Amino acid sequence: MTIAPDALAELDAALPHGCLLTDPDLLASYSHDWARDPDAVLPAAVARPTRTEEVQAVLRWAGRHRVPVIPRGAGSGLSGGATAVRDSVVVSTERMRRIDVDPVTRIAVAQPGLLNAEVKAAAAEHGLWYPPDPSSFEMCTIGGNVATNAGGLCCVKYGVTTDYVLGLQVVLADGTAVRLGGPRLKDVAGLSLTKLFVGSEGTLGVVTEVTLRLIPAQPPSCTLVATFASVQAAADTVLAITRSLRPSMLEFMDRTTIGAVEDALKMGLDRTAEAMLIARSDAPGAIASEEISLMADACTASGASEVFTTDDPEEGEAFAAARRFAIPAVERLGSLLLEDVGVPLPKLPALVEGIASIARTRNVLIAVIAHAGDGNTHPLIVFDPADAAMAERARLAFGEIMDLAISLGGTITGEHGVGRLKKAWLPDQVGKDVMDVTARVKQALDPLGILNPGAIL
Amino acid sequence: MTIAPDALAELDAALPHGCLLTDPDLLASYSHDWARDPDAVLPAAVARPTRTEEVQAVLRWAGRHRVPVIPRGAGSGLSGGATAVRDSVVVSTERMRRIDVDPVTRIAVAQPGLLNAEVKAAAAEHGLWYPPDPSSFEMCTIGGNVATNAGGLCCVKYGVTTDYVLGLQVVLADGTAVRLGGPRLKDVAGLSLTKLFVGSEGTLGVVTEVTLRLIPAQPPSCTLVATFASVQAAADTVLAITRSLRPSMLEFMDRTTIGAVEDALKMGLDRTAEAMLIARSDAPGAIASEEISLMADACTASGASEVFTTDDPEEGEAFAAARRFAIPAVERLGSLLLEDVGVPLPKLPALVEGIASIARTRNVLIAVIAHAGDGNTHPLIVFDPADAAMAERARLAFGEIMDLAISLGGTITGEHGVGRLKKAWLPDQVGKDVMDVTARVKQALDPLGILNPGAIL
Repeated sequence: MTIAPDALAELDAALPHGCLLTDPDLLASYSHDWARDPDAVLPAAVARPTRTEEVQAVLRWAGRHRVPVIPRGAGSGLSGGATAVRDSVVVSTERMRRIDVDPVTRIAVAQPGLLNAEVKAAAAEHGLWYPPDPSSFEMCTIGGNVATNAGGLCCVKYGVTTDYVLGLQVVLADGTAVRLGGPRLKDVAGLSLTKLFVGSEGTLGVVTEVTLRLIPAQPPSCTLVATFASVQAAADTVLAITRSLRPSMLEFMDRTTIGAVEDALKMGLDRTAEAMLIARSDAPGAIASEEISLMADACTASGASEVFTTDDPEEGEAFAAARRFAIPAVERLGSLLLEDVGVPLPKLPALVEGIASIARTRNVLIAVIAHAGDGNTHPLIVFDPADAAMAERARLAFGEIMDLAISLGGTITGEHGVGRLKKAWLPDQVGKDVMDVTARVKQALDPLGILNPGAIL
Repeated sequence: MTIAPDALAELDAALPHGCLLTDPDLLASYSHDWARDPDAVLPAAVARPTRTEEVQAVLRWAGRHRVPVIPRGAGSGLSGGATAVRDSVVVSTERMRRIDVDPVTRIAVAQPGLLNAEVKAAAAEHGLWYPPDPSSFEMCTIGGNVATNAGGLCCVKYGVTTDYVLGLQVVLADGTAVRLGGPRLKDVAGLSLTKLFVGSEGTLGVVTEVTLRLIPAQPPSCTLVATFASVQAAADTVLAITRSLRPSMLEFMDRTTIGAVEDALKMGLDRTAEAMLIARSDAPGAIASEEISLMADACTASGASEVFTTDDPEEGEAFAAARRFAIPAVERLGSLLLEDVGVPLPKLPALVEGIASIARTRNVLIAVIAHAGDGNTHPLIVFDPADAAMAERARLAFGEIMDLAISLGGTITGEHGVGRLKKAWLPDQVGKDVMDVTARVKQALDPLGILNPGAIL
């Protein structure tokens, strides 16, 4: 259905002046996220609330007029979770940017539009740390992190977003604002609704405030970089390390990625290596260096070609930054379809081999980076959008990689979310009965189906 | 409604021989858990399945005949979560005791009837560790731990049950068995249903298999014991420690508890102290001892009367065991009403003071132990059940402690669950709108209301 002009005027009147954008030129940048969903269209309007009450006003209006609401953070999502649909209103949290850190309770109470990096910085002012660190941490919002249950590089030791969310304020489909959980480190009063809303990708409510657990500042890290002549040798090393140690980072890059990063950053990486691992220990004091030394032994035992270790935090950060730069570096080779499949750890070599096989069969370049310690890979499928046949082959490879992950007992998405781009594969992974449970929960909380319709379900 | 005898015969026929108990003498021990809910009655029968399919048969039968099903682990619950109701069938998981540990994937796949201690032991055989450690870990089941999202002593550093549950098999109200999550360290495919079922106290489904994340074995710990002339001084120390360190245990006992433990164990504890803290560091190598030394400094700075530290694991374990023995020790003084309230950390002194005030007003003895680093306290209300007036005063104190916790921004239950005993206070804590969301989720997943009716809701 089309939104009547007087309905939009009614919404505009219900919101503070300047909150609602309807100028098509302004709307264009709100139509899709980084996934560039080909089905994206201009929304009818974009609301940019600053307060929970304004989000409530939008939802109440949307319920009355049956208008789809698309919650949106920074638009850095990679699965089309923030694709605008026809005659929808995008709720952008860009102006919801307050944060309060309580160092005694060790929590931060943040509005959703704050960047992950800003949350980290606010915590650091008090000697505290908010661990989850998606590679996009300098541009993604904490609200988006909550919506996708975002992961990152240090999650192999410190866990993902949901492990740090103590409480939420959420506006439900009918405009009711509820507080779930709160500033209590342990709280089992009632169903685990806070956890249900984390990772729900805007399909159950709009998060307007997040209460985050903070921990003492991370000690300085020691870092290891090792190169391998085969992916299997690198994967063996990952299993050997995680068997007895808890690295604070354990990342993998394949030959294509190494080359792309070296092209961009000129760091002197070994372009002939088939695989590279970057590992870190943040164990306190001298133990970090001892642990890195044990990890180096594991690399050597698996036949690493080169092993470099450093206890200089800046030098170590350069390698971590190289890893974080992998996606932009590979993006210089063409447009990307960004995968996010994960498998049980021992299946990592089979996954990486299978991806190489798909790349050969489909004749597309696929670079692989991975949060190896979590079994979570990001195959980056490179294609030229001007070459329709290649774009189609890339699209097929995208699906085949998910099929492969499912066949290995894995997941179609480790940390990016299902959004719209991966929705067709979700039933294959979780099965019809779990889809039915999902639909029942969605129906119970959003009976009109106005919250981010088309995402997940 | 009453269950017709031929309906019970139908259930018996649907299950393997010996699975269903109907002899009233045998049923008696299944009528209540440790909370000794005064409303407990004999169930009509107890099913003791060994396989998921048998649980499905019970649920399908229960749905057809509208019979309440009460899931039960070891019966060590403290909130009446396993109270049998009239004409119900208890599903006891006591015979579901298989476990497989996969040390490469670092997971355990366990049936729910295994004891927490047995899960720990199975992991330890492979040099791995399952951290959550309720004080009852030698007698409580992993299924019960999942149902209540159980905590414990090391959770202050390592998190609670939900942080280790990667996957579940659950039999839903209609008898469908679903697999949620799986052996993947990161997985955001679809709604966070695994997390929703953890802590749902048997109201949404019956857990028949749990996939648990394991981590490398815990290094040996150093331990600190300190006594204080005031609760405030001990609480100040807790805040000072958690501000910059991550102890692997940070426990509190008040004067009454110290005396009761000393009566029982004759360890030479200082009976004149108003408060005692037991703290641990399991940081690797020599760092544990360095951290304990910093914690000792914090105790001294807050005016501790005595501070004792040890890097002898056995000596340290004796103090941890003393803390774990606190509940049985206090139980020697009379019957107990066991509280489980939690508050934001800075409110800990106000909570402990308020509890002392309630004890005076109601003229009952209340011993306080606490997972202090989590702000989670266990006030133990001691009463003589033969003294009706005192039992009534204890009951009033039980409710007033929850009222106090709520007034301090806290929770009525940190780790034991709402069950039936705390149900009346849940709306006061979470509010009408969250109760409504809870009811909608419950209705969506158990429309006939046959799963543990009367618990939580």
